[in-house]
Amino acid sequence: MARKLTLGVTGPRGFRAGGIHAGVKAGSPEDKLDLAIVTAERPCEAAAVFTMNRVQAAPVKLSREILAKSGHKLQTIVLNSGNANCCAPNDMENARRMVRITEQALGIDAFESAVAVASTGVIGTELNIDVIEKAIPQLALNVAMAEVSAFRAADAIMTTDTVRKSLAVQYHSLGNTVTIGAMAKGSGMIHPNMGTLLCVVTTDADLPAAKLQLALRNAVDVTLNRVSVDGDMSTNDSVFLLGSGYYATEYEAFCEALTALLTSLARMIAADGEGATHLITCSVKGATDEYDAETLAKSVINSSLVKAAIFGSDANFGRILCALGYTDVDFDPNRVDIEFASTAGNIEVCRAGHGLAFDESHAKYILRENEIEIKINLHLGQESATCWGCDLTYDYVKINGDYRS
Amino acid sequence: MARKLTLGVTGPRGFRAGGIHAGVKAGSPEDKLDLAIVTAERPCEAAAVFTMNRVQAAPVKLSREILAKSGHKLQTIVLNSGNANCCAPNDMENARRMVRITEQALGIDAFESAVAVASTGVIGTELNIDVIEKAIPQLALNVAMAEVSAFRAADAIMTTDTVRKSLAVQYHSLGNTVTIGAMAKGSGMIHPNMGTLLCVVTTDADLPAAKLQLALRNAVDVTLNRVSVDGDMSTNDSVFLLGSGYYATEYEAFCEALTALLTSLARMIAADGEGATHLITCSVKGATDEYDAETLAKSVINSSLVKAAIFGSDANFGRILCALGYTDVDFDPNRVDIEFASTAGNIEVCRAGHGLAFDESHAKYILRENEIEIKINLHLGQESATCWGCDLTYDYVKINGDYRS
Repeated sequence: MARKLTLGVTGPRGFRAGGIHAGVKAGSPEDKLDLAIVTAERPCEAAAVFTMNRVQAAPVKLSREILAKSGHKLQTIVLNSGNANCCAPNDMENARRMVRITEQALGIDAFESAVAVASTGVIGTELNIDVIEKAIPQLALNVAMAEVSAFRAADAIMTTDTVRKSLAVQYHSLGNTVTIGAMAKGSGMIHPNMGTLLCVVTTDADLPAAKLQLALRNAVDVTLNRVSVDGDMSTNDSVFLLGSGYYATEYEAFCEALTALLTSLARMIAADGEGATHLITCSVKGATDEYDAETLAKSVINSSLVKAAIFGSDANFGRILCALGYTDVDFDPNRVDIEFASTAGNIEVCRAGHGLAFDESHAKYILRENEIEIKINLHLGQESATCWGCDLTYDYVKINGDYRS
Repeated sequence: MARKLTLGVTGPRGFRAGGIHAGVKAGSPEDKLDLAIVTAERPCEAAAVFTMNRVQAAPVKLSREILAKSGHKLQTIVLNSGNANCCAPNDMENARRMVRITEQALGIDAFESAVAVASTGVIGTELNIDVIEKAIPQLALNVAMAEVSAFRAADAIMTTDTVRKSLAVQYHSLGNTVTIGAMAKGSGMIHPNMGTLLCVVTTDADLPAAKLQLALRNAVDVTLNRVSVDGDMSTNDSVFLLGSGYYATEYEAFCEALTALLTSLARMIAADGEGATHLITCSVKGATDEYDAETLAKSVINSSLVKAAIFGSDANFGRILCALGYTDVDFDPNRVDIEFASTAGNIEVCRAGHGLAFDESHAKYILRENEIEIKINLHLGQESATCWGCDLTYDYVKINGDYRS
């Protein structure tokens, strides 16, 4: 079992990180960090998954290119918030420039190793590359001077996030203590079936790129790809995994710890969804296959009506049944059981597809907690899946009614 | 060209209608009508389309059954708001009882003709059939006494609707003046690809059921099925079309007038979306086929982020590009043009997939109007499609945070 640490990407051996205020977004306050570097002491085995959106930001296209060219070796990721550098004038040129300046500042030889890039923020507006160009040398110096800070790096990629997402896990394998660290940003434009949001994962495990890639793909599929805030899949989603190769490990143990780490991140992202007041966990069991269970759970956490009901602490299970019904999954509505649960207790509201008489005030009491679980049993088979989302609130509308200004 | 009338289902010859307060929802005020009858003087040729949701309300299942049994003949539709009679105790029994009582009250011989039923409101709670049973005879008497009122019937099916949806069109064909009337309810749980919402269409055109069915299916596909308020497809959507058979008509002319009528209804429903302050029309042209254009336009009007941006009068076209990109439609992001338009003017914001420099204050001026058009050109082919939606507002969250209580 992996042990959780309140560290981040600098938890594993061989990594440094830092964040700085560059002023990417005009007029942003001096204390808003917006440029981050995560770098290893030596070239790493690397894996990555990216957004499935047909419209892809320049940094996504460029990072793909760099990974292919370098034979899946990376030493550094440079990331900015405040601008997505997507569908914007000179987007590819500016992404290349971010990489080049970072190479120069860190003294990385582009023939031996590689730098990847990620951006998040407003789409369609030109990136202010001048402020980034000015800030990178200072940031590189901070990182080199061992003024390492996983937290500053994590802060620098936040946009509408209200909570820093930076953590690490440790586990023991083959006599070694192996660490996996991660940072992520994600609050809006979050939807399953993507590479997903911005996330950098570091580890000192010694695994080749191909194994890291498989582990990352599998872990993301059951964690970050099961989060939805608003059903909008981003153009900039990127997850990187860098392995510094210090410690031999059993592969299974690594995969398990990685999945545990990304599950924690997934829950943090859902709980910090734009404007969210409740984390919603929807688990579907009794399905004939896992994909069906996942599709149904996602449909529930994506339903605006379910999300608004949870905001209002309203045990409106009819909307849950409705959301199950408009997927393309074959199930029998007359077998479905639904239950709400939280730390305050649990209440069954629907059995065999029909509403039960239940105590509304007790239901409200349960649904007032911060974390709400919706438990669905299809009574068809043995498979299950869990997805995470959040409620739909006034603040979601407020945040997104005027995000650009 | 069809002429619009401010009539409704009683516009065409041979139809009567009425609405009454039965008290379906406990504690609802006396002036909230909640039970409607639309009836013809004689058995009609009938057509219908229903929700595609796997979870289907008892009235939907029963009306399907009745249509099949009667050989697509209907004389009457009885409808209630305040309770969806879906996934609720005794749901099928109560739906049958509504039909039986209506037959008795109107003196309809179930062997010669048929009564269909539709319900809308909260899912999962038992229908109060007693109040309906008490109210139907009085309602039937009102309707029989020629106290006809298309408006009262339309009012009786409203739930969170703020505007009555009742209208009619007339056109000339083969020397006859043919009328088509309609009423609908729909404000939340509205999403494309359904039978759609509750809607009763009446006409005095003389067409057989099979032709009515084809006309209805085709018209719904390009009108009501292109509306989305919140992406949640209802369990109770039903559209009925009854033809009293008085006037011969060219089929083409009928189809055209029906589509015009349902287009007007579609726009009314989108504009009256729960909490809506803007009607959003999204038209996609330059597609290689119409289905692609429709898929892309729907993705834009379903995007929570686009909807919130329109609420904030923010010309955030990056979110539009993003919503196009996460469909499964094959298009070239580097050819896409995007323009916003309203009665206050129009402004091009994106050309060939890249943001243009535009005057933000002019964009805000255009986007402050009630009706906003998003025009997208893919520059790939000759096909196009238009879909309708609305913005995402504080009031949507408010309405749906506590709908049941």
